[in-house]
Amino acid sequence: MKKRDSMEMHKAWAGKIEVISRVKIENKEDLALAYTPGVAEVCLAIQKNPELSYSLTRRGHMIAVISDGSAVLGLGNIGALAAMPVMEGKSMLFKQFADIDAFPLVLGSQDLETIIQTIVLLKDNFAGINLEDISAPRCFEIEERLADLCDIPIFHDDQHGTAIVVLAGMMNALKVTHKDKTLKIVINGIGAAGTAIAKLLYEAGFRNITVCDRKGVVTKENALNGYQVRLIEMLNQASSGTLEDALNHADAFIGVSAPDLLSEASIHKMNPDPILFALANPKPEIDPVLAKKAGAAVIATGRSDLPNQVNNVLVFPGIFKGLLSSGKRKITTEMKIEVAKALSALVDDHLTYDNILPDPFDKRVVEAISNSIISMK
Amino acid sequence: MKKRDSMEMHKAWAGKIEVISRVKIENKEDLALAYTPGVAEVCLAIQKNPELSYSLTRRGHMIAVISDGSAVLGLGNIGALAAMPVMEGKSMLFKQFADIDAFPLVLGSQDLETIIQTIVLLKDNFAGINLEDISAPRCFEIEERLADLCDIPIFHDDQHGTAIVVLAGMMNALKVTHKDKTLKIVINGIGAAGTAIAKLLYEAGFRNITVCDRKGVVTKENALNGYQVRLIEMLNQASSGTLEDALNHADAFIGVSAPDLLSEASIHKMNPDPILFALANPKPEIDPVLAKKAGAAVIATGRSDLPNQVNNVLVFPGIFKGLLSSGKRKITTEMKIEVAKALSALVDDHLTYDNILPDPFDKRVVEAISNSIISMK
Repeated sequence: MKKRDSMEMHKAWAGKIEVISRVKIENKEDLALAYTPGVAEVCLAIQKNPELSYSLTRRGHMIAVISDGSAVLGLGNIGALAAMPVMEGKSMLFKQFADIDAFPLVLGSQDLETIIQTIVLLKDNFAGINLEDISAPRCFEIEERLADLCDIPIFHDDQHGTAIVVLAGMMNALKVTHKDKTLKIVINGIGAAGTAIAKLLYEAGFRNITVCDRKGVVTKENALNGYQVRLIEMLNQASSGTLEDALNHADAFIGVSAPDLLSEASIHKMNPDPILFALANPKPEIDPVLAKKAGAAVIATGRSDLPNQVNNVLVFPGIFKGLLSSGKRKITTEMKIEVAKALSALVDDHLTYDNILPDPFDKRVVEAISNSIISMK
Repeated sequence: MKKRDSMEMHKAWAGKIEVISRVKIENKEDLALAYTPGVAEVCLAIQKNPELSYSLTRRGHMIAVISDGSAVLGLGNIGALAAMPVMEGKSMLFKQFADIDAFPLVLGSQDLETIIQTIVLLKDNFAGINLEDISAPRCFEIEERLADLCDIPIFHDDQHGTAIVVLAGMMNALKVTHKDKTLKIVINGIGAAGTAIAKLLYEAGFRNITVCDRKGVVTKENALNGYQVRLIEMLNQASSGTLEDALNHADAFIGVSAPDLLSEASIHKMNPDPILFALANPKPEIDPVLAKKAGAAVIATGRSDLPNQVNNVLVFPGIFKGLLSSGKRKITTEMKIEVAKALSALVDDHLTYDNILPDPFDKRVVEAISNSIISMK
């Protein structure tokens, strides 16, 4: 792909989403039915029973993709306006993969209270909110408080989409390497994704997890905020030292950090058949070829040109499809684990070191995830 | 139309608008072009030059239809959620009449400051804002302050859409009745529409205007708020009395008030060939048959089953089409008058007492209005 192609295509598309009318209005009778005076009784029915908003308006099919542009994929804090092409892209994927209407909205403030207040004011327009590219640690409080304040599902994809795919991949990596949940996992990078990965793995029964960031192993003393303290308390993490110290006799490394942090020597410190999720994108924490040469059994990356791609598109369309289809209004930890199981099961028959996750274009994925949510009690 | 038809149709439609993807994503190459990594340079281009948001995202074709549900057509303050069928209807009309993407948003607050702040936070998503069904007098301050705070056009349709159609109709009513701008006009009802009608007629050169509300002629003493005081100061209105007093020797009556306020006797008090805009809907201020019998020359109503329908759909699609096509970012009084002229000119060749306004389904309307804006200096 030439670099300028994307720019030219964006000019030609003039927006990757479009709002269309589902009703043909060709004469006064059509107008009277879809607009005034016919619409009045529809309004009054919703006023009487707010649940009817899901069936009498687009709400039941409609979510919002909302960002403040503070942590846009690989670009950082580029602000609201510049983040729109990503949010449109995400909305486009919701429609194509799950036939969900998603409307992109960027907010002209990065103030936590303002973001929460604004989304609460908008919630009744939508059946769910996909939070996107909001920086840590604000993203944690924003999501938690919105989940309390809203009667619709709130899903910060950068956290949980990534975490669910990693959990699914890890479940399958265990099978191909004949390891079990007692394996030692080192996570490097505890922003939005790293934190969510650590928490979800813990909730799924993994109990030997060490989290690191650029200062090395995270401790109560060097933690940057209360979220990091609570995370290491949850993990019961007492060790300290460098990332390289932590890698000694580790079985798995999960990087959501920066390119080229690991060397062949790092891999050699790990237990046999190490599992690597090197998710820094587009340049992973270690060159996959080098990692294989150094003895890595499984290597997953964020890249579409390599095997075992960890791509959130495996999860977010199916999650919302399941939520909207079932009318479930809260996303639970149990639900995330069920989704990861459903995703991992799709490659059960063809498990290899290089095939621990389905292809993002595997048509079965959305249905499998959606059904796993629908069938939950 | 049976009453239940509209409800059944709304169930079948499951929303009158839909958000679709304009891009087919069928493989990893498509994804790389429309999403990551290709989208990054598009984001950076917008960060460098915010104007590119109009061409590289949907913004250039996209407006919002925003309401707080405080003054919904004929239903009053039914709240945000219940107002959505109307906002979807309006969005549907924008698409069908002018090929403009309009996204409906209802706000979960009726606090003036909150509404203004929220819309400012959302403005960068859109090329314009159509405010809808927000009650007076809040709607005046909300629109005025937003026009100052936003670099995109802000248009409260209940005010200006109605005012422009009335001005267009009045221009033609003058011609068929051989009256001129010195005629005496009585306006009854000074909510959003009545106030905007009075102001626009004044700005267009009509100087003999008396405004009334349910207490009769509005005076400094009985005015309900500063907006009413400023309005009668602008109009240089010094008289007092009842509506019936005001109708003595009046040439035109414009009602945006309540059903059946006028009698045959009221019409008899007026000058010969009176012009009536009886816009209370669905039941006008006077039965049109009665009004004709009493000597009314021209009678316009809001009803689609009668001649001379004052319907905002004559204006709002073309206004925004003109604004978006021309890149004009402010709506001026001069612009509203030009639009009214363009609208009135469309029936120049077939002017009769019963044909002072084009039919809402006249295909020429949107282009004529849009062109009148584009051709303004």
